[in-house]
Amino acid sequence: MFSIDWRPNKKDRMPLHIQIMEYIKSKIYSGDWPVNTKLPPQRELAHIFHVNRSTLATALAELIADGLLKSKIGSGIWVANNTWSVLASPKQVDWNHYVDSGICLPNFPAIQEINRSEFNPANIRLGTGELSPDLIPSAELKSIISKIPDKIQSFGYEEAKGLLYLRQQISQYVRDLGINASPASILIVSGALQALQLICFGLLPKGANIFLEKPSYLSSLKLFQSMSMQFHGIPMDNEGIEPAPIRYQNKRQSTSLLYTIPCFHNPTGILMTKQRRQDVLALSQQELLPIIEDDVYRELWIDAPPPAPLKARDQDGRVIYIGSLSKSLSPGLRIGWIIGPEPVIERLADIKMQNDYGSSSLSQWAAAEWLASGLHQNQLRKVRAELRIRRDFALEALNMYFSDIATWTIPQGGFYIWLKLIHPVSMQKLFKTALDNGLLINPGNIYDALANHHLRLSYSYAALPDMKQGLSRLATIIHKLEHA
Amino acid sequence: MFSIDWRPNKKDRMPLHIQIMEYIKSKIYSGDWPVNTKLPPQRELAHIFHVNRSTLATALAELIADGLLKSKIGSGIWVANNTWSVLASPKQVDWNHYVDSGICLPNFPAIQEINRSEFNPANIRLGTGELSPDLIPSAELKSIISKIPDKIQSFGYEEAKGLLYLRQQISQYVRDLGINASPASILIVSGALQALQLICFGLLPKGANIFLEKPSYLSSLKLFQSMSMQFHGIPMDNEGIEPAPIRYQNKRQSTSLLYTIPCFHNPTGILMTKQRRQDVLALSQQELLPIIEDDVYRELWIDAPPPAPLKARDQDGRVIYIGSLSKSLSPGLRIGWIIGPEPVIERLADIKMQNDYGSSSLSQWAAAEWLASGLHQNQLRKVRAELRIRRDFALEALNMYFSDIATWTIPQGGFYIWLKLIHPVSMQKLFKTALDNGLLINPGNIYDALANHHLRLSYSYAALPDMKQGLSRLATIIHKLEHA
Ligand SMILES: Cc1ncc(COP(=O)(O)O)c(C=O)c1O
Ligand SMILES: Cc1ncc(COP(=O)(O)O)c(C=O)c1O
Repeated sequence: MFSIDWRPNKKDRMPLHIQIMEYIKSKIYSGDWPVNTKLPPQRELAHIFHVNRSTLATALAELIADGLLKSKIGSGIWVANNTWSVLASPKQVDWNHYVDSGICLPNFPAIQEINRSEFNPANIRLGTGELSPDLIPSAELKSIISKIPDKIQSFGYEEAKGLLYLRQQISQYVRDLGINASPASILIVSGALQALQLICFGLLPKGANIFLEKPSYLSSLKLFQSMSMQFHGIPMDNEGIEPAPIRYQNKRQSTSLLYTIPCFHNPTGILMTKQRRQDVLALSQQELLPIIEDDVYRELWIDAPPPAPLKARDQDGRVIYIGSLSKSLSPGLRIGWIIGPEPVIERLADIKMQNDYGSSSLSQWAAAEWLASGLHQNQLRKVRAELRIRRDFALEALNMYFSDIATWTIPQGGFYIWLKLIHPVSMQKLFKTALDNGLLINPGNIYDALANHHLRLSYSYAALPDMKQGLSRLATIIHKLEHA
Repeated sequence: MFSIDWRPNKKDRMPLHIQIMEYIKSKIYSGDWPVNTKLPPQRELAHIFHVNRSTLATALAELIADGLLKSKIGSGIWVANNTWSVLASPKQVDWNHYVDSGICLPNFPAIQEINRSEFNPANIRLGTGELSPDLIPSAELKSIISKIPDKIQSFGYEEAKGLLYLRQQISQYVRDLGINASPASILIVSGALQALQLICFGLLPKGANIFLEKPSYLSSLKLFQSMSMQFHGIPMDNEGIEPAPIRYQNKRQSTSLLYTIPCFHNPTGILMTKQRRQDVLALSQQELLPIIEDDVYRELWIDAPPPAPLKARDQDGRVIYIGSLSKSLSPGLRIGWIIGPEPVIERLADIKMQNDYGSSSLSQWAAAEWLASGLHQNQLRKVRAELRIRRDFALEALNMYFSDIATWTIPQGGFYIWLKLIHPVSMQKLFKTALDNGLLINPGNIYDALANHHLRLSYSYAALPDMKQGLSRLATIIHKLEHA
């Protein structure tokens, strides 16, 4: 029955055992070797194929493992199966395996859902950390954009640190905040989020210690967690983060840093006082603990300008400062900046070049022209006035609908009210029920896993009538869940 | 002499041993305890401070380690040093420590130097992988940009996958290349480099196996190396990457993928033939090996259009396709795209949201309007014609100056000529000497550590007279180094 006139080609780069496997598969597949065919003894087959016994054994072992052959002890090897599904190798890559084994953790499911649902105009967005479209000065921005063609000098790759003209504008801009920074110590980034990403990958070993407010925006990101950074959530009081527990927990030996949002903190809205800023800086000096000052909400004060940035009092280069145009002007520009000691900025610029070869020239030119135009101060005045109206409106609605189910403090600026429910509810259920009712909220537990009493409300985005209606509906939902 | 009337405050959150350290330091600093003062026995001190022996021992051990105290065996503990520099804690964070311990490797020094030196207009750029400014259609781009104000619908955050309108344009654009991709399976990225970054962090575990051409653009990046990916450089012949060695080396058990630049490969310029494309796809099917097809040079053909993309023949979703506007239009836009199976695109979009919340709206609108305008085909025609002139000019100059020191093949498109020097020279020395002479070159060893005979020349960037003069100077330098 066996008249095998084939042998593997030793000149082919395909390994001999794979050639043999393919041959045997083709015999089974074609029906030449039906199920229960007994193969010649291994010694004989090796001879026919002109290969040594171990090569043959490797091929047979793989086919046995695939279920195509079976070995009966003492009686040789038999064809076991000829169904196409076993014979044909699967054609599709198991992408889920690739997705699941990726280095970065996926976003929280709630955040993924928010990222999707924000683009459904039917939803009322009660948690969105973004200016309402009518607070974005579209007409002025458009007139700035229409000037880019006269200004832009190159459509090529930009310098690693970003367009010099923009860095000059930012250098001037932060001078008014009390920060002395030459363009060489400024790095342009695609929003403050990218600043955090560069810091995560550029300045820290895996497993470094991050001190941060509890709750914190940073905890809602998976970025640092993906790199196994150790988060040490530090309590806040109404003056800001408390320094003492940091001193207590900091092990000086290991690489650590403090991440803080001193102005109109996300998600609590707390403004760090001047005294607390001094305490935090003193701590930083005593502990040699570098500080990441995320100051993206600074300009959005409602009642009075906030105290000077930590960076403004940083004589010894311990503070890395992050700013952005997202919260005060337009997130779609994707323009932010990092200010720090030059070796740090050089390092982060190098990582930025490895990520995306620099930020969009168009956005950089638009941002530079915007800052140069002087329009920004008008915009800030307008936004502050509008945020005051929105905040007061939100507080009124809260008084109306939430006074028996939650407590809150009055933010002095920024976007957020950190609502504390009197009775804990399942955050997952609340999020889902709200969404089913067309309300998009930011559950507190994405900022602090244990914050199951909390919601981050934002008064910056929804139109006032929507906000009122949305809050009323939300209160009803919470009432129901409390009694479910 | 010792009248210690102080003891640590147990209510303070600062640990007791640190309070004790600070106290002793203050005593030494003030001169109360001069050098060679003998401290009371530990038992006694512990008693005075009202702490247990181990707390005291911790404090003393740290001060001994700091060099402030010394312990003489059998005779107790003495003050060893009172210089201010030891006493005062250093005020400056050791940023070098942070920079050095960061997760991502720094770029190659040569690449860092290139990134810097490109912005010195005195240098002739013989290696730059970028269109010359006169090949960028600035006037047309400016007219497109001036239309953004009428078009842009939002200055807010964009959808995770990017502006739908742009994805629709790209979907149409790639249809002409033979690729069927709905907008849902397209992700907008800030250039092809970011596509690679997202794939690195989103689809692969640390240490995954990457098959790639040897040499390869990818080897010049530190991205995958930072995540300990295993690079398997595969030889190329003049038809492209060779499939057989991949089959031979691939261990099916582990997570692997093939990264290839089939069109006008960076740095060799090789175009993968149609037959080779079929072989590579067959390999991918047999091995269930996913392919990353980096096709950023596809449109830059000079002699004849290249064969269809691998992605065009990918029935089973094994190919992830990367495109970009950088090489054919403008790198400063920072617009590229990834096309792949939807679960992959969703995953990469999620990682993108974690990196930078999406690409610049301005750039996305500009790219969309550009593609919608139909101007792109004109631009491509113009670039192809100009690249032909530039290639032929470069070849002529090479014939004139390099025929006795190097060999090369004639590229059919793209930007690059992979020069093989007849005698190896130190790449570092060549790079440096060239730069000292105002010539910026891309040494071959950044694409393949062992390529010490090679240079990547580019005929896309330098003005023709500069190119000629630069190549002549470069030949002289190589001659000299050969005989040094
Ligand atoms: C505290 C804080 N930092 C950074 C960001 C990121 O802002 P962007 O990347 O848009 O500048 C945000 C926005 O949500 C934020 O709240
Ligand atoms: C093969 C290849 N892929 C990707 C890139 C990155 O291009 P960009 O990020 O500008 O689209 C380059 C440019 O150097 C390249 O040569």
